[in-house]
Amino acid sequence: MQTLHVELGERRYPIFIGNKLDPQALLEPYIHGRQVMIVTNQTVAPLYLQHYQNAIEALGKSIAVCTLPDGEKYKNIKHLNLIFDALLEAGFNRDCTVLALGGGVIGDMAGFASACFQRGVYFIQVPTTLLSQVDSSVGGKTGINHPLGKNMIGAFQQPQAVLADMSQLNTLPERELSAGLAEVIKYALLGDIGFLAWLEEHMDGLVKRDSALLAEAVYRSCAHKARIVANDEKEQGERALLNLGHTFGHAIESYLGYGVWLHGEAVATGMVMAADLSHRLGWIAAEDLERTKKIILRANLPIRCPKIPLDEFLAYMSHDKKVLNGQLRLVLMKQLGQAVITKEFDTELMQQAILANMQ
Amino acid sequence: MQTLHVELGERRYPIFIGNKLDPQALLEPYIHGRQVMIVTNQTVAPLYLQHYQNAIEALGKSIAVCTLPDGEKYKNIKHLNLIFDALLEAGFNRDCTVLALGGGVIGDMAGFASACFQRGVYFIQVPTTLLSQVDSSVGGKTGINHPLGKNMIGAFQQPQAVLADMSQLNTLPERELSAGLAEVIKYALLGDIGFLAWLEEHMDGLVKRDSALLAEAVYRSCAHKARIVANDEKEQGERALLNLGHTFGHAIESYLGYGVWLHGEAVATGMVMAADLSHRLGWIAAEDLERTKKIILRANLPIRCPKIPLDEFLAYMSHDKKVLNGQLRLVLMKQLGQAVITKEFDTELMQQAILANMQ
Repeated sequence: MQTLHVELGERRYPIFIGNKLDPQALLEPYIHGRQVMIVTNQTVAPLYLQHYQNAIEALGKSIAVCTLPDGEKYKNIKHLNLIFDALLEAGFNRDCTVLALGGGVIGDMAGFASACFQRGVYFIQVPTTLLSQVDSSVGGKTGINHPLGKNMIGAFQQPQAVLADMSQLNTLPERELSAGLAEVIKYALLGDIGFLAWLEEHMDGLVKRDSALLAEAVYRSCAHKARIVANDEKEQGERALLNLGHTFGHAIESYLGYGVWLHGEAVATGMVMAADLSHRLGWIAAEDLERTKKIILRANLPIRCPKIPLDEFLAYMSHDKKVLNGQLRLVLMKQLGQAVITKEFDTELMQQAILANMQ
Repeated sequence: MQTLHVELGERRYPIFIGNKLDPQALLEPYIHGRQVMIVTNQTVAPLYLQHYQNAIEALGKSIAVCTLPDGEKYKNIKHLNLIFDALLEAGFNRDCTVLALGGGVIGDMAGFASACFQRGVYFIQVPTTLLSQVDSSVGGKTGINHPLGKNMIGAFQQPQAVLADMSQLNTLPERELSAGLAEVIKYALLGDIGFLAWLEEHMDGLVKRDSALLAEAVYRSCAHKARIVANDEKEQGERALLNLGHTFGHAIESYLGYGVWLHGEAVATGMVMAADLSHRLGWIAAEDLERTKKIILRANLPIRCPKIPLDEFLAYMSHDKKVLNGQLRLVLMKQLGQAVITKEFDTELMQQAILANMQ
């Protein structure tokens, strides 16, 4: 097991990364109060809920469970309210802990609920997908979707601890494993060319779910994100680099409807569009663009999106949170493995980069 | 005009207190971005919306307005969502300002919406009731009610600035003026016996809405609260003193249904119950209890509540946020003008104190 500490001053917390971890021993110091609400979904509950219930009951805590339907389309205010209902019906008070057991959607919703319930209670994350292990574990972003935009309503809420157990990835569907690898690749592309070489060496093992390789990929991704977040918790500056591929990806997800494409799939194609635009701007070489596409393809991810009318694509992009004073900013690559946030790009070239990677 | 600065480090902000203030000049430095969402209600909008719209438009900002129905019963997740709808339909991005124009309900909802929209945008408060001027202006508590409890869902969100204009109190209904005076009296009872003497001298003028006296009462109340909040922003300790009368008061409000009694009315009777229990415990004298009742009566506030079955009253009290590890804590008076947070009280005496002040 490796332990990574996310350095956020008094909100410093550990991420435990390994295979077949012991939740009772690891989580004991981080559960506050006598009451623990486990928020999970209908897919994860039959697989792992009992395991965590047993561990937490052995710590003498009283447990309530809120099981939501599985899927991004339930990440809305109505289902958020079900968590509040569960907390209040079970008589939870301010001194309690909310534990998210599931993927990114559950982490986002349980985290946001814990930020708002009684104006903030304690929060622990047990991410059960590769995507949430590398992405949602670090950074404290929580929230829900709105019909007019993704993650439009939320809070920054740091967990007390995160437990990332590779053994739980064995039950993950292929598509979701790949979606997680999209975010892993993102860290390589945005700031670590050495990690890109490592991924090119080990992608076959990662796709075959070698737990030691997965743990290393999760550790390196989280460490990278943790460094950025520690410098810029509230996304005033460099944290926006983490959105490589996301502005394009959000447009794809929004147009298709939440949950049709997985977030990681949309980000994968979004990264191709960002790389393509970076190439058209003369910042990266044709080989760099090809290298980007190849590693994405090897992770079984899409490098082009379905046909979307350009005006609608652009409209969804302009709803993105990175619009500042009406001006679109994009995360692009100055060189392969080195991303920048910029508004200095030709709109015509951007449109070409979008259309070139659409079916 | 007096300016009070609430000292919260980098979240330091001013409260402007006076008569017929100039919003254009005062608010200009505190409005961020080009977009301003004014959240108000159907009672306040016809009276003051145009005035603020003109001032903000003169600053070259683009304005959208979200007008909610008036009343505590609308302080729920459904109406909160209307603010999010308005923000997204108007195309607001992360760099915008939400301005609350109204009483405590509008301040709580607009503040909470500004805390959650895009995980946090800028917030300005223009409280138009005495209660919200003395209470909601300081402390950053925002939120909504849940059918199972008041203010159960929310966030700490500090405004950029607060503008408290006494001239707007001339349109306030009598009952709401009195409800505001309840919170003013609270500051005297919990920590400032000198202020209690001042109130005893000037209560007639306050009830007649003398704007200079009101401004002084608002200033002293806000200054008192600001000192406490600066020491204890997240209510770990002494900030709980501000809940004098509130645990009893919440039970009254919850039983009667939100909005039947005004918050300040319930707090007034709650303070009588707290004083009564403090007397039964031998902490304050019979004359202190009478002095408490008298100043409350002179503000045209109720000193007893309607008949409520004791078991229901107690059940509502136990839902209060001040329950810690299942143990009820109350704010009581060690002596008149000096409150403490305590769990050291006889439950039997507490029940007597409740019943003694019930019809």
